[in-house]
Amino acid sequence: MPTLDFWFDFASTYAYPAAMRIGPLAAEAGVTVRFRPFLLGPIFKAQGWDTSPFNVSEAKGRHMWRDLERLCADLALPFRRPQPFPQASLLPARVALIGFEAGWCEAFCRAVFHAEFAEGRRIDDAAVIGGILEGLNLGAQAILEAAQTDGNKHQLRRQTDEAPRLGIFGSPTFIASDGELFWGNDRLERAVRWAQRGR
Amino acid sequence: MPTLDFWFDFASTYAYPAAMRIGPLAAEAGVTVRFRPFLLGPIFKAQGWDTSPFNVSEAKGRHMWRDLERLCADLALPFRRPQPFPQASLLPARVALIGFEAGWCEAFCRAVFHAEFAEGRRIDDAAVIGGILEGLNLGAQAILEAAQTDGNKHQLRRQTDEAPRLGIFGSPTFIASDGELFWGNDRLERAVRWAQRGR
Repeated sequence: MPTLDFWFDFASTYAYPAAMRIGPLAAEAGVTVRFRPFLLGPIFKAQGWDTSPFNVSEAKGRHMWRDLERLCADLALPFRRPQPFPQASLLPARVALIGFEAGWCEAFCRAVFHAEFAEGRRIDDAAVIGGILEGLNLGAQAILEAAQTDGNKHQLRRQTDEAPRLGIFGSPTFIASDGELFWGNDRLERAVRWAQRGR
Repeated sequence: MPTLDFWFDFASTYAYPAAMRIGPLAAEAGVTVRFRPFLLGPIFKAQGWDTSPFNVSEAKGRHMWRDLERLCADLALPFRRPQPFPQASLLPARVALIGFEAGWCEAFCRAVFHAEFAEGRRIDDAAVIGGILEGLNLGAQAILEAAQTDGNKHQLRRQTDEAPRLGIFGSPTFIASDGELFWGNDRLERAVRWAQRGR
């Protein structure tokens, strides 16, 4: 089965609709999706930004929030603007890596995006993340501990370092198995088609 | 008839497919389009950039060229990467303002984008711009002179100053008569629909 890698930072606004849409779209096309969380921070720092570009440029940020609101309305996705923005995404990214190995990564990621962008909850709060794990009938305590081991922390650093080497500069990014890269929720359909047909 | 303002810099890559698509889409929807050229330079300078953001970030630029190539192939639009990039857009922007008053603005703008992105010609060359005007059966000499009068130069400065006041931070941008703003070629259909229905 062809595969498509879905690279995202949990703090990324357009990763929210992408995470909610990618599963059904890929299933319909017979494409396997791999959720690859990483941290955008180092990429933004290399550009000289210490926050999201949507905070760096006020006009760009204003448009993004309005655009996301319109987009979510079109998709019938509930939407609430996270406070603060961007959320610190380190903890859910570490937990998602455990889920990648264990097979519950996508369900967990969708639940985190829902908590963040539909309910306005803080995703850097271990109680919130633990509650999400419980909601998925997973043992929260053991998973939160596994997420904070040195080995798992290192694994996230490795994945974060890998992103720019693959040409990634933002989130969400989709990469087909031949290396073809698509940036942005607007390119999701195109990326799935590419993964399916190899062009 | 509802109107939609199409704000763009002639050097902007995604303004090329937008300029080629907007006329037919708007006509079908019963929407009148106004072509509003402006210069992105001052907006980029305010962000600390002295060139296109696609030159500032190499990874972002690499994706954009590949994305534009894929996009133009989908749309059956010929595509050649302009050299140098970005092109200096001052001269065609000034000429387009004359065309706005005289009613040949859209035809001229489409021809400039074609010269730049399909033929790889330099749009800062008065001979190229003059040739485009001749191709439209317009008096090139008189128009080029009118474009370089102080009054017309001032008009472009005014339009360029107006852009950030309207919330514009990039090109292409579409603004409906109620002020609703859409950024990017990807939002063209949505913008036309908004202009048509007021939502």
